[in-house]
Amino acid sequence: MTRRAGRDKAGRFLAEGAQAVREALAWAGAGRGRVHELYATAVAVDRNPELVQAASAAGVRVSPVTDAAAASLSETVTPQGVVAVCDLVDVPLEGVLERARLVAVLYGVADPGNAGTVVRVADAAGADAVVFAGDAVDPHNGKCVRASTGSVFHLPLVRERDADAVFSACREVGLRLVAADGYATDDLVVAEGRGELDRPTAWVFGSEAHGLPDDVVAGLDAAVKVPIYGEAESLNLATAAAVCLYASARAHRS
Amino acid sequence: MTRRAGRDKAGRFLAEGAQAVREALAWAGAGRGRVHELYATAVAVDRNPELVQAASAAGVRVSPVTDAAAASLSETVTPQGVVAVCDLVDVPLEGVLERARLVAVLYGVADPGNAGTVVRVADAAGADAVVFAGDAVDPHNGKCVRASTGSVFHLPLVRERDADAVFSACREVGLRLVAADGYATDDLVVAEGRGELDRPTAWVFGSEAHGLPDDVVAGLDAAVKVPIYGEAESLNLATAAAVCLYASARAHRS
Repeated sequence: MTRRAGRDKAGRFLAEGAQAVREALAWAGAGRGRVHELYATAVAVDRNPELVQAASAAGVRVSPVTDAAAASLSETVTPQGVVAVCDLVDVPLEGVLERARLVAVLYGVADPGNAGTVVRVADAAGADAVVFAGDAVDPHNGKCVRASTGSVFHLPLVRERDADAVFSACREVGLRLVAADGYATDDLVVAEGRGELDRPTAWVFGSEAHGLPDDVVAGLDAAVKVPIYGEAESLNLATAAAVCLYASARAHRS
Repeated sequence: MTRRAGRDKAGRFLAEGAQAVREALAWAGAGRGRVHELYATAVAVDRNPELVQAASAAGVRVSPVTDAAAASLSETVTPQGVVAVCDLVDVPLEGVLERARLVAVLYGVADPGNAGTVVRVADAAGADAVVFAGDAVDPHNGKCVRASTGSVFHLPLVRERDADAVFSACREVGLRLVAADGYATDDLVVAEGRGELDRPTAWVFGSEAHGLPDDVVAGLDAAVKVPIYGEAESLNLATAAAVCLYASARAHRS
């Protein structure tokens, strides 16, 4: 389950570390999914009695494991010794976007740390969903789960290889598709001034290394850049996403 | 020079990789500092003829090195084979804040990747300076330089262990000291509504792990949080800084 194929086959993934396990149990407690089992080393049980208690209260079996076994389940160099086996969190594209006002679409974002950080930002900004479109990283990847600091359990995540299907679904529910594109003519200030950010919006973000392909940008409703006031060439993916998503969140609330 | 003490003693640091070297040469070309020497492997010379040309045009000696020597100068696992020996970029606190309207103060931020990303964000948002205050990472750290993607060469950076001296200097030039603090009562929207973001501002950011100590927050002029609209507990340092600095940049320009 430390590999995508294994996760997809099992329909399960591993949430590792005290924080992720806490969020997984809350997610299961809210009826959003199921935690099947909790593996914990003796040290981890000592250190996190509240997790063991919460798991037991939720009817989740807690299985003691050796440090070596915990390390083999871990993708980090310093395993915390506590791992929850969870149902996959992703949901189908159909239905999830209804009544959505703010959505983040990650197009071909391959870096799990970046993707997880954007999930965290989207959660904080009150987005209704995050869609992993095209050839993107699996949100259940251990690094992505970790970078999201629990946010993978907070808002609906969709995996859809067919990016055109994602864009069509957004349009059908009235979401304006806006490319976050450093090469765009208009910046956020211009878009805000025109009242464009007031509208229900699906922001489309490309990978940090390659950005969005030109033909993808051309097929969307608009392209907007974050204004650069200094000498920096660009922002990184997560900070650009933070500025864009919060600009929409503010416009939607004012 | 891969260690702080060595860099401080030599008064020099290493800018590694094609992008950092390009920015270092532009920085030197603008008379902001000096590049003493460029080390490049044969492969790197082949791959980056424009860098070698720019160095020669600027009177910077280009010394061929073996892959092994380049690797020993490198802090990355995949060295690019090109390293510039540069004067330290930091400037004294005195004078640098005059006429400043937007400053980022990193208080005790120890993680070089986070610090470098904030330097990049501050540069993009048009900040006048970044101050590394208290027990913070050295901005010349290789990871910090890399994460800044050249921005360490773009705007004045100050290193000052005495955080109170930093806060006094900010106040003297009329900068309002605002703690970015997830536990603050007021959020950015409230501060913006009151017109507080229109004022010249020094944002004070704490470390990702510990935030700002209570006594530091208590000594500043205000504390403001980024509003959290979803279930996330917080934002990470770089994304929080992006939202705060861009909120000020927008307020200063509207």
